[in-house]
Amino acid sequence: MKTIGIIGGMGPLATVHLYERIVLRTKALKDQDHIRVLIDSNTNIPDRTKAIIGDGEDPTVELIKSAKLLEKGGADFLIMPCNTAHYFIDKIQSSVHIPFVNMVQETVKRTVDDFGRDAVVGILATDGTIKSKIYENYYASLGIKTVVPQKSQESVMKFIYDVIKKGNYNEGTDLLFEAVEELKQLEATAFLLGCTELSSAQYLYKFEGSFINPIEVLTEKSIEFAGGQLS
Amino acid sequence: MKTIGIIGGMGPLATVHLYERIVLRTKALKDQDHIRVLIDSNTNIPDRTKAIIGDGEDPTVELIKSAKLLEKGGADFLIMPCNTAHYFIDKIQSSVHIPFVNMVQETVKRTVDDFGRDAVVGILATDGTIKSKIYENYYASLGIKTVVPQKSQESVMKFIYDVIKKGNYNEGTDLLFEAVEELKQLEATAFLLGCTELSSAQYLYKFEGSFINPIEVLTEKSIEFAGGQLS
Repeated sequence: MKTIGIIGGMGPLATVHLYERIVLRTKALKDQDHIRVLIDSNTNIPDRTKAIIGDGEDPTVELIKSAKLLEKGGADFLIMPCNTAHYFIDKIQSSVHIPFVNMVQETVKRTVDDFGRDAVVGILATDGTIKSKIYENYYASLGIKTVVPQKSQESVMKFIYDVIKKGNYNEGTDLLFEAVEELKQLEATAFLLGCTELSSAQYLYKFEGSFINPIEVLTEKSIEFAGGQLS
Repeated sequence: MKTIGIIGGMGPLATVHLYERIVLRTKALKDQDHIRVLIDSNTNIPDRTKAIIGDGEDPTVELIKSAKLLEKGGADFLIMPCNTAHYFIDKIQSSVHIPFVNMVQETVKRTVDDFGRDAVVGILATDGTIKSKIYENYYASLGIKTVVPQKSQESVMKFIYDVIKKGNYNEGTDLLFEAVEELKQLEATAFLLGCTELSSAQYLYKFEGSFINPIEVLTEKSIEFAGGQLS
């Protein structure tokens, strides 16, 4: 089986959840049946959203450091549990000789499989991801319409930064569902959890509905690509 | 802050839990407040118990590979979420120039703090850990009495290998508590979860009582040693 390299730490909890999902969803009867995983939970990577909106340090220096470290350590391919960081994927890819499994691209493909080409996708994500149009452009290339929160984007950011990243889990999901309600009014039929902190929130709060969870998509694709068996 | 290097994959779920506990117990308001963690979830490491009882491949070759890889990647110190593997710690330590935080040693010290020198510690662990007397010897050096299951050791092994390692979580904790009951009859006043799969079981099933959880002890010691703040 191939070795998975995870450029992590954006945030660390999302990396924990991706790693956990890979372990739990691999069919294994003993330790040695599992896929080898190398993780750099690199918390020196500067904030991605700040860089995209032109208000912060360039994160590619640290992203490339992690990619090279993982390649040198024996990773056969790379994955990155941070939607926003995919804005920089071409720069990182060109710094190494091993392939990437692109979480954003795989998630967009999965949306078509699960919700069809007529879906209207409501994007729940950071200002950085929305401003960069990473998801919007990929969806548009497949002819899928997207909508983003107009009045409640601030609530999404508060939920990501003040509830999840600060570990204030008792606050619950009200801020997030404010945006889900607005997206429904904008005719969204499926809801993209387009920030890994929102994927983590789904594992923590176990909410259900027409949500698309990129960490779950990436888990399945990574196990497949590594040559493991899905349980 | 120092970078933590985790020699993992023994089993992978225990490594997930240690990593998760380090993230959740570090006081942090943003990604960059977290400690950098490098993980080699090296599932090529052969079974430790089999090696100790003389029936399997030597795991030190792969253990040393992981240690060196982590050192080269920038880890400032090493930890290893596998009690049984601590049998080989001197060999691994002598292959690198960075220190180890020894989970077994720290756990034994913590037992004294929490249960006093008069405690009788019932050891729940693999045949390998018990046969190697890793815990027994450390406890004896502090004058602490230990007891091990006589009739129910097989149940402990079944619980570790058939319930936890195989992911049959619906089986519940009956096999484990059979041994806890026997240890009580042998006058144990505290129960060491001396296999990381048993630590994982405590996180999964959330059972309470006079248990000593080495993963929790190692989490605290690692955050401290790295210069992070405990939340």
